[in-house]
Amino acid sequence: MTEAVDSSRFCSVGLLTTECYDDVGNFISQAEEAGHDFVVSPLTHPIFRRVLNENKQVEKQTHANWKDRPVFDRNDLVFKSAEWSTRAMGLVANWIQLDSTDSEIRLCSEIALRQEIDWTCHISLSGLILPALPKGSLYNTARVINDAVKSMTYTQFAVRVPLLEKSNIQGNVSWKQWNRFRTLTEHNTKIHVALEITSELPSDEKLLNLWLAEPVKTVIVPGEIFVSNSKGYPVLPKPHQRFIQKLMDKMKPDIVVTVPPTQLHKMATPSSYSEYINYLNRHLPPLNEVEQFAAGYHDYLQAPLQPLMDNLENQTYEVFEKDPIKYQQYEKAVYQALLDRVEPNSDYVTTIMVVGAGRGPLVNCCLRASEKSERKVHIYALEKNHNAFVTLQNAKADIWGDRVTLVFADMRKWSPPSQCDILVSELLGSFGDNELSPECLDGAQKFIKEDGISIPASYTAFASPLASTRLHNNVAAYKDLEHFETPYVVMFQQVCELASPEPLWTFAHPNKQDIPDRGDPLNNLHNKRYSHVEFKVKHDMVMHGIAGYFESVLYKDVMISIHPKTHSPGMFSWFPIYFPLRTPVQVPQNATVSFDFWRLTDDKKVWYEWTASVHGSHGEEMTVLPIHNVNGRSYWVGL
Amino acid sequence: MTEAVDSSRFCSVGLLTTECYDDVGNFISQAEEAGHDFVVSPLTHPIFRRVLNENKQVEKQTHANWKDRPVFDRNDLVFKSAEWSTRAMGLVANWIQLDSTDSEIRLCSEIALRQEIDWTCHISLSGLILPALPKGSLYNTARVINDAVKSMTYTQFAVRVPLLEKSNIQGNVSWKQWNRFRTLTEHNTKIHVALEITSELPSDEKLLNLWLAEPVKTVIVPGEIFVSNSKGYPVLPKPHQRFIQKLMDKMKPDIVVTVPPTQLHKMATPSSYSEYINYLNRHLPPLNEVEQFAAGYHDYLQAPLQPLMDNLENQTYEVFEKDPIKYQQYEKAVYQALLDRVEPNSDYVTTIMVVGAGRGPLVNCCLRASEKSERKVHIYALEKNHNAFVTLQNAKADIWGDRVTLVFADMRKWSPPSQCDILVSELLGSFGDNELSPECLDGAQKFIKEDGISIPASYTAFASPLASTRLHNNVAAYKDLEHFETPYVVMFQQVCELASPEPLWTFAHPNKQDIPDRGDPLNNLHNKRYSHVEFKVKHDMVMHGIAGYFESVLYKDVMISIHPKTHSPGMFSWFPIYFPLRTPVQVPQNATVSFDFWRLTDDKKVWYEWTASVHGSHGEEMTVLPIHNVNGRSYWVGL
Repeated sequence: MTEAVDSSRFCSVGLLTTECYDDVGNFISQAEEAGHDFVVSPLTHPIFRRVLNENKQVEKQTHANWKDRPVFDRNDLVFKSAEWSTRAMGLVANWIQLDSTDSEIRLCSEIALRQEIDWTCHISLSGLILPALPKGSLYNTARVINDAVKSMTYTQFAVRVPLLEKSNIQGNVSWKQWNRFRTLTEHNTKIHVALEITSELPSDEKLLNLWLAEPVKTVIVPGEIFVSNSKGYPVLPKPHQRFIQKLMDKMKPDIVVTVPPTQLHKMATPSSYSEYINYLNRHLPPLNEVEQFAAGYHDYLQAPLQPLMDNLENQTYEVFEKDPIKYQQYEKAVYQALLDRVEPNSDYVTTIMVVGAGRGPLVNCCLRASEKSERKVHIYALEKNHNAFVTLQNAKADIWGDRVTLVFADMRKWSPPSQCDILVSELLGSFGDNELSPECLDGAQKFIKEDGISIPASYTAFASPLASTRLHNNVAAYKDLEHFETPYVVMFQQVCELASPEPLWTFAHPNKQDIPDRGDPLNNLHNKRYSHVEFKVKHDMVMHGIAGYFESVLYKDVMISIHPKTHSPGMFSWFPIYFPLRTPVQVPQNATVSFDFWRLTDDKKVWYEWTASVHGSHGEEMTVLPIHNVNGRSYWVGL
Repeated sequence: MTEAVDSSRFCSVGLLTTECYDDVGNFISQAEEAGHDFVVSPLTHPIFRRVLNENKQVEKQTHANWKDRPVFDRNDLVFKSAEWSTRAMGLVANWIQLDSTDSEIRLCSEIALRQEIDWTCHISLSGLILPALPKGSLYNTARVINDAVKSMTYTQFAVRVPLLEKSNIQGNVSWKQWNRFRTLTEHNTKIHVALEITSELPSDEKLLNLWLAEPVKTVIVPGEIFVSNSKGYPVLPKPHQRFIQKLMDKMKPDIVVTVPPTQLHKMATPSSYSEYINYLNRHLPPLNEVEQFAAGYHDYLQAPLQPLMDNLENQTYEVFEKDPIKYQQYEKAVYQALLDRVEPNSDYVTTIMVVGAGRGPLVNCCLRASEKSERKVHIYALEKNHNAFVTLQNAKADIWGDRVTLVFADMRKWSPPSQCDILVSELLGSFGDNELSPECLDGAQKFIKEDGISIPASYTAFASPLASTRLHNNVAAYKDLEHFETPYVVMFQQVCELASPEPLWTFAHPNKQDIPDRGDPLNNLHNKRYSHVEFKVKHDMVMHGIAGYFESVLYKDVMISIHPKTHSPGMFSWFPIYFPLRTPVQVPQNATVSFDFWRLTDDKKVWYEWTASVHGSHGEEMTVLPIHNVNGRSYWVGL
C-alpha cells in the first residue's frame, strides 16, 4: 500500500513559539530543519509594552508623540524585515488589553494593535494570531479588530480559541465567547479561528462538531497534549486523532504544533510532533464515491434545477446517469412490482410509461427488470426535451426496437392511446417535490389504470437546523435580500447540524382523493402544504439556515434517500438543499427551534416560504424571524 | 372659554356593530343621525360560512368550483355595493380560521379572507378589521395576511387587539401575540392595530404606554366599559379618560364606540357614547410652547446639523434665537459668574469671548448680564460664517458700539490679542458633543486665562432604549444599511421608552489635563469615549432604537437639559436624537438591555459606533447585535 499524499489533502505544519528570539532567522532555519513548513512567533519583544505606560515610566511628551504618530524602534520587533515573511506568522503581543477598564490602557492597546497589524501587512507575514479573547467584556476588542482587519489583504487574521477553557471543561464558554465576538463583528470574513486542541476534549461530540461550522483556518496542537506510546514516542489519544483528522478533512487548516520545552516524551525529537501530524494527514480515510464526485462542490451554492422551464443539457444527463445506485433501485422497484402484479409465465404485457425519459436510463431499468423477472412489458417513453428526444430515437433504432414506443410530449398535456399499469418517473429534487414532481404526476395520473401504480409511490421532505459560517458568508456576499430568500443545492462540508431532520410533508401517487375524475385537476390547491416542526437543541449554538433532504418510497420497501440517517449508500445524484435565514439566530442550550414551512402555488409557479423561531428552555419566546420569500418574491419554480 | 376644536385635533367617531343588517344603508343613516361619522359592520352574512364546508354540506363540485374561482352570491354580502364606502369600515368574518389544524379549513379560510379583502378594495371601504388574532399558533395567519394586504392601497387593514385578555389581566399576552404577528410580517406598514379598550386597564402604566409605539390607527371603546355618572349618563373612569386622551393626542386615531344592546346607563341615548368621546377630544390639554413649536415635526427624521462643515442659514438662526429659555439660562450663567468673579463697584473689565456668535444672541445675553450685575465687560464676538458676520456688523454699528469687538475667524485657528475671563459658546447638539463642541472648545481653550472659565462648563450625553414602530418604519423605508446607521434629530411622539436614560460620558471645559500647554492639542485622542450602560426592563417589549439626550452645566447650578426628567421647561432648541438599530430587538420581561457606545475620531471626522445586547432574567445572553456604523462608514461629522 502506497502512502502517496493526495495533493488536495496537503497539510502545512508549523512550529509555534512564545519565546521572543533575537535572531528569528536562526529559529526559522532550525524549525525548517526539523521538518516544519513555517513558524509562528511573537511579532514584538516585551520591551514594546512600555507604550501602555502602566507605571507612567515613559516621559510624557515622548508618550504623547507615540500616540500621535506611532512608530516602532527596530529593537521592538522580532520580525525586523520582510525577509522571512512567507515562512512565518506573527502573534499579537499578549499584553494588549482592548477591554481594559482603564481608558488610557484601552487607547494605547488599540494604537499598539493597529501598529502591529500595520507592520505585519507591511512585511507581508502570512498570518497574525491574537493570543486570546478577553474573558469578560469584549465589545471594544470586537470594535477595534473589526475595523483594523479591513486593511488586511494578504495577511490572514485569526483569533486563538481553546477547545475547552481549563476552568470550564464541562461547558463551551470558549465557543460562546468566540460566538459573541463574531456576532459583534458580523461574521467578518477577514477574521478566522486558530483552534487550540486541549488535552481534555468536550464529552459531547456536538461540542466538537460545532467547530466545523466555524472559520477554522489554523489548528494549534500543543506538544503537551501528546502522550507517549509504548516505545516512548509522542502520539495523540484516539479521540484527538479522530477530531484532528476530521478537521483536516473538512477544513483543510494549517496545523501548528509546539515542542515542549522539557522532554515530556522519552523518544521525542524536535521533529516528532510535526511528523506525527503529517502521519495523521497521510492516513485520512479514503474518499468514497460520493466524496470523489463531490470534490470541488463543497459548500458551493448551486441554484436548483428548473427542469420544467429549462431543458437539461446533455452534460447534465451524462452526469446523473452515472449514479451507481439510483437506477439499481429503480430497476429493483420495477422488478418487484412486475413480480407482484403478474403471475409467472403469464402472457400479460405490462404497460409501463416512463414520463420524463430523458436519454433513456429508466427505459433501460424497466427492460432489465422485465428480463430479470421474465415478465413481458411494453414501454412508452415520454419526453418533452427535443434534444434528449433525438437520443431516445437513436436508442430505439439501435437497441430497444418494438418494445418501446417514443412519445414527444409534455406529460401534463399528452392524451395516451391507452392506460398503463406502471408509471415510472424521476422528477425528484433535493427537497423531494421542489422540481414539481407533484404537478407533473398530477397531469400524468390519467395515464394510469384504475389499479395501476406510480414509481415512486411517495416522497417526503425533511428539514433540520444547520450552522455554517461559510454558507452564511457565501450567501451574504451577494448583499441582497433575494439571495437570503433562495434555496440552494449544496454539498455540505463546513457545517454542523443542530438536530436530526424532521419530516415536513409527503406526496403520494396516484392521488385519487384530490383528482377523483382522472381528468386534469381544476387547480393546484391540493399541492399546497404547511408544516410546523420542532427540534430540541442541547447545546448553545448558532443557526444560519435550514438543511433540506428527501426520502422516497419507490415501491414497497425499495427506497431512495438523501436523509443523512437513511442515505442510499453511494448515491450521488442529489446534494442536500439549503434554505438560508436572513440573520444568524442564537440558540441557547436546551432551546426549541421551530420551523414553519409552506409549499405554495398559483397559476404560474410554485414556491416555498419559511420562518424560524426559538423558544428558551422554559418555553419563553426568544426569537421570531420574519417570514422569508413572501409570495415567492425572491425565488419560485415556474410551472 | 370657547370650545373651538383645533382642526389638527379633529377626531372621527364611528359606531361598531357585530349584527349583520339586511339593510345596512338604513343602519348607517341611523348611526349618522345619532352623531357618528361612520360605521363598522361585518362585511358578509353568516351564510358565507358555508364555504368552510365544515359538515361537508356543500356539494363537492360546487365547493371545488368555489375554491377554484371564488365568487360571492350577492346575498352573502352586507355591503352589496360601493354606495356607503366612504362612511364604513368592514369586519372580517369571525369564523375565518387561518391557523386551524384542519388543512381544508385553513385553505378555505385563506380563500375566503382573500375574497373579502378583494371585495373590500373593490368597493373602496375605508377600512377592514380582523376581529381577533388566533390565541395559539398564528404563523399561517401572519403569512396569509402579510401577503394579502399588499393589494390594499386605499383601504386600511387593522387587527383588533384587546388591551387586556380577560383570561390574563395581569400580563400582556395580547400585546405579545400582536408582537409575534408583526414580527413575522416584518413590521408590514399596511397592517395597523385597532386597539380595544377594556374595562380593566393594566396596572402598570408602561403596559399602556407601549401601545404608543405601535401603529394604532383605530381605538375601539365598547359601550359596556362606560360607567354611569351621578346623573345616569355614561362616562369613562379617570384612568380610561387619561389613556384615551393620550392616544388622541399622540396617535390621532379614529375612535369607534359600540352602543350596548340593553340599557346599561339610565340616561344613555344612542348618541351618548360618541358625544362623550367628542367631549374628551375637545378637552385635550392645550399644547405648550414646545408642543406648538414641534407641530409637524413629530417623528420626522432630521439629519443632525453639521455646523462646522456647513454654514447655517438665516432662517435656522431665526428659529433658534426664539427659544424663550436657552438664552435666559445663558444670561443667568454669565450673571452668576460675573457676581462670583468680580467685586461690586470694581473697575475690572471682564473679557468675554463669545465663540460662534452667530447673529449675536449670546452677545446680548452677556451685555444684559453685565448691566444687571453692574459689572463691566468687554466682549469679543467670534464668527466663521461670513453671512452671519454681516448681521453682527449691523448690531455693532446700531447697538453694541465699543463694548463689542467683532472677529471673523474659525475659533480653532484664531490667535487672540489677549486672553479672556469667560469663554461663552453654544455649540451643543442633541447628544451634547455631537456637533463637535469638544473639538471646537479645545481650539478655543488657549483664549482662556489661567483662572478663566467656559460657559458651558460641562455636558453629558444620555441614552435610553426606545420602542417606536413608526420611527423604525421611517428608517426602514430607505431600504439601505446607511440609514440604519445614521442618528436623526427627532421630536418623539409615537414612542415608548423602555427605561430611563443613563449617562454615557461627559466633556468638561477648560480641559487642563489633556491640553496642558494651552497650545493646540497634538491630536484628538482625548475626545474619544467609550461607555457600557445597562437598563433593567420590567415588561416584555420590543426595542427599535436608542434615544439620546444631553444635560449641560452652564455654570454651577445653572443648567440646560433635554433629558426627559430634567428637561428645561419650554426650551425647544433641541429635539432628542435617535440612533436606529438595524433589526427590532425582542426584550423579554425582567431582561437587561445594554448599550456599548463609542465616540470615535480621526484626522478628518468624528463619529459614533453603537451596539445593543439583551440578557435574560437569569443573566443568559439572548441577543447581541453587530456593531453599527463601523469606522463611520454610514455617518460621521466632519472636522
